[in-house]
Amino acid sequence: MGIKFLAETLTQRIRRPSLFSKLTTVDHLIDSGFFKNGMKIGWSGFTGVGYPKITPIALAEHVEKNKLQGKLRFDLFVGASVAPETEDRWARNLMIARRYPYQSGKDVQKEINMNRTLFADKHLSEFPLDLVSGYYSLDKPGNKVEKLDVVIIEVTAITEEGYLIPGASVGATPELVQSAEHIVVEVNTALPNFEGLHDITFSKFAPYKFPILIQRVDDRIGTPYIPCDSEKIIAIIESKKVDKQQASALADETSIKIANNILEFFENEVNMGRLPKQLLPLQSGVGNIANSIIGGLVDGPFSNVEVWTEVIQDTFLDFWEHHKLSFASATSVSFSPEGFDRFYEIWDDVKDRLVLRSQSVSNSPEIIRRLGVIAMNTPVEVDIYAHANSTHICGSKMLNGLGGSNDFLRNAKLSIMHTPSTRPSPTDPRGVSCIVPMCSHIDSTEHDLDVIVTEQGLADVRGLAPTERAKLIIDKCAHPDYKPILTDYFDFSLKKCLERGAAHEPHMLDKVFKMHLGLLGNEKTMKIKNWN
Amino acid sequence: MGIKFLAETLTQRIRRPSLFSKLTTVDHLIDSGFFKNGMKIGWSGFTGVGYPKITPIALAEHVEKNKLQGKLRFDLFVGASVAPETEDRWARNLMIARRYPYQSGKDVQKEINMNRTLFADKHLSEFPLDLVSGYYSLDKPGNKVEKLDVVIIEVTAITEEGYLIPGASVGATPELVQSAEHIVVEVNTALPNFEGLHDITFSKFAPYKFPILIQRVDDRIGTPYIPCDSEKIIAIIESKKVDKQQASALADETSIKIANNILEFFENEVNMGRLPKQLLPLQSGVGNIANSIIGGLVDGPFSNVEVWTEVIQDTFLDFWEHHKLSFASATSVSFSPEGFDRFYEIWDDVKDRLVLRSQSVSNSPEIIRRLGVIAMNTPVEVDIYAHANSTHICGSKMLNGLGGSNDFLRNAKLSIMHTPSTRPSPTDPRGVSCIVPMCSHIDSTEHDLDVIVTEQGLADVRGLAPTERAKLIIDKCAHPDYKPILTDYFDFSLKKCLERGAAHEPHMLDKVFKMHLGLLGNEKTMKIKNWN
Repeated sequence: MGIKFLAETLTQRIRRPSLFSKLTTVDHLIDSGFFKNGMKIGWSGFTGVGYPKITPIALAEHVEKNKLQGKLRFDLFVGASVAPETEDRWARNLMIARRYPYQSGKDVQKEINMNRTLFADKHLSEFPLDLVSGYYSLDKPGNKVEKLDVVIIEVTAITEEGYLIPGASVGATPELVQSAEHIVVEVNTALPNFEGLHDITFSKFAPYKFPILIQRVDDRIGTPYIPCDSEKIIAIIESKKVDKQQASALADETSIKIANNILEFFENEVNMGRLPKQLLPLQSGVGNIANSIIGGLVDGPFSNVEVWTEVIQDTFLDFWEHHKLSFASATSVSFSPEGFDRFYEIWDDVKDRLVLRSQSVSNSPEIIRRLGVIAMNTPVEVDIYAHANSTHICGSKMLNGLGGSNDFLRNAKLSIMHTPSTRPSPTDPRGVSCIVPMCSHIDSTEHDLDVIVTEQGLADVRGLAPTERAKLIIDKCAHPDYKPILTDYFDFSLKKCLERGAAHEPHMLDKVFKMHLGLLGNEKTMKIKNWN
Repeated sequence: MGIKFLAETLTQRIRRPSLFSKLTTVDHLIDSGFFKNGMKIGWSGFTGVGYPKITPIALAEHVEKNKLQGKLRFDLFVGASVAPETEDRWARNLMIARRYPYQSGKDVQKEINMNRTLFADKHLSEFPLDLVSGYYSLDKPGNKVEKLDVVIIEVTAITEEGYLIPGASVGATPELVQSAEHIVVEVNTALPNFEGLHDITFSKFAPYKFPILIQRVDDRIGTPYIPCDSEKIIAIIESKKVDKQQASALADETSIKIANNILEFFENEVNMGRLPKQLLPLQSGVGNIANSIIGGLVDGPFSNVEVWTEVIQDTFLDFWEHHKLSFASATSVSFSPEGFDRFYEIWDDVKDRLVLRSQSVSNSPEIIRRLGVIAMNTPVEVDIYAHANSTHICGSKMLNGLGGSNDFLRNAKLSIMHTPSTRPSPTDPRGVSCIVPMCSHIDSTEHDLDVIVTEQGLADVRGLAPTERAKLIIDKCAHPDYKPILTDYFDFSLKKCLERGAAHEPHMLDKVFKMHLGLLGNEKTMKIKNWN
């Protein structure tokens, strides 16, 4: 059965009649005084889709209207990022006291970087388990494993049993429901019913955990719905707002060069017998490099490609339509509104080639390692010894958070970091080198990465010692503007460290961040003149 | 059936008569000219037990006698560290061109830190898979998945099928045998036959990998022997040398205080309902803190404790004898010679409460996460935001390598780093603070650690944002001599970073390593006078 395009009514989407009594309006819910300062609140959603829209926006309006900024603050738990219309608006209204484990949006980032919103990023595979284990409620003494006060979930239908059918993302919603004391459900009638697309599992506590019995990207081990105790539902509200995810960045010359370097590497690995000819399941991050890689695969020599990833974006639509992609597993389909329109059109062709899972499974080390995933991600910067920074500019300024990058890079069969060799600074179009002596913050270590690639070339660092890696990464990946600077750093460091018999991974700790300091200083560029 | 204490003859230990024809002497093997410069050689062994002794020592003697230093160099692959009598002696004779993925011994470390032995450390769970995937043979073009030229394995028996029974360690031996073009077997008749103690599995390539069907620490999923193709065996040599592992360091006042802090934390977690009363399976590192923890558990309130770890040391003998330890799974029993004597005495009591597995299983993220292991390790240093350095002194000087620390810390239910708050420097008994502003090398990230503990106290950083972690770690864990220094660093950094709206994880990149530079400088202490 295909996706339901019919404009069904709210009561058609709620197949458990006893729940009709919980139907209410958002105004009524807010006026009831239910939401109180200091509450721990969960939202459904992952990478800008499947998040609740009506209640969060109405709560923001309530704060704005009653000038409650700073007086109605919540701890906010979502599987990953949502969209500016909710998260950034809450941030502007000082409504977010704490945020876990990932975010996006300039306003929430501003609050985090002013240390007013307390944010901690966490491996996305681990967040749901830490949540149900009570690790985010240690501040509530007396409560053993504390629950979230309320969880707000967007669904596209409710089953006869009162179980919840998510929309375009699963994320941590199962565990948020599992942890909820109260649940608010937003039933979105502007979206089709996504029933049948999901494979839902929960996080269990040790010692009651079992093997995750997935051996192929298309194995299903869960339920097509999120089991939910109807008694916990305090309100059901209709929503007609669609997800407002922006189309991802387009391929450009740099990203196409990077993608070509990677595709050429894949061909060689196949020729050498280290990869099967259909490759291994791919994990691909977000952004224009990821899009260029998928674009390259659409036109490339590999058929029957499988995907085991977190997020599926617009370019995957071509991948399916050209029948190069045999199956994709993810935790969200984060399309633009135009992408969703195309997705609904090809639904009958795609529905048996896609499953959305809980993020505890999509990002599970167990499965990533078993399937031999090829992981590809973009960092802020990589250093000459193959450590990577995914989160903090110049060591301190948070971007989005760790996300699932190291769930994948740590456990993948092939771990690839792709980045332009430079980025612009305020004074210089190549004022930032993405290859640095030492990352100013480290999220993936030298023990996790196999391949570093820029538009300049590809460094295969498997099996290499740090001093070999440094020479290769500088040679293959650094921009010509920075090669002499980085070579000097390495040569001076090696010399100094040999003098004291400490040259396994040579560094000069008094100068190691001089390029970053150049960027933070008056010159606003990493092109420093010397290492003196 | 208990362990065989009988002094069996060599031919009693080799139960496949057709293999008698391969019996030879080490002199004959070496004089045959088999060992050539540039060979890739594997050894059995893990943490100083189960390593081959006859052939490596004879090869070193051959080099010494014929002045072949620098002319007979090998790439050396062992599951983890072995013992100075082989590894350090090879290092002194310049026989190690490359070494993977872990080592110990001052001479091999000297060569590594002079950049003459090219060393790369790797998560111990990943090393065997990388090995069979050919990631250490990329330098041999033309060969698809290149094999090791020869692997030298110590066994305690050979079965009727020609399969190998290891001694006190499994480590990466199964995968070394799997990768071997030729095999030299040393049958150790000075040790009892360890048959029945092992559960052997191999590393398979994706996409032919399956779930590791272990749900309890005592589950067995493999064979009691290492399958081996008899045709690959080029020589069988008798050995009568026992493992020369030193007894691990004894508990001292500092380590007992640290252990008490951890045990008190466990009791609170049990009371709060976050841990079951028998705890969860423990992983415990090596050294005096680990010994104090096990000592504390022997006398403590927890019964039926399980262990899922890498290495079992002498203190575990008390743990068994007091019947507090219900079952232990590891990849090696690294006892001292006196410890082995005790072990053989209590063998009948212990044999059903111990299994030795392949390191790809003992350190498997899949199992560590499923069992909800409590991981405890000692770092070189921890920083105020809860990153940890396990490997490099002042960022550049390699100690032993990463080992399995982050296999466990990443995937554990509770990840604990324990360290004295200070260590001595050449000029000051507390000249090194183990709590620093930023680790000079990072092996475990802030996303991996839950608890930092020193003799000063315990910081439970679960759910905390970086600025909260910093205050707590300084308050609870830093030595009073360093508290004002670290507090000043954090306060100044926070102020500076707030000025530019970058205060998620405040740092001053121009000063961040000033304590390390103090240690490296003339004063030889981290007690710096100010942050100017």
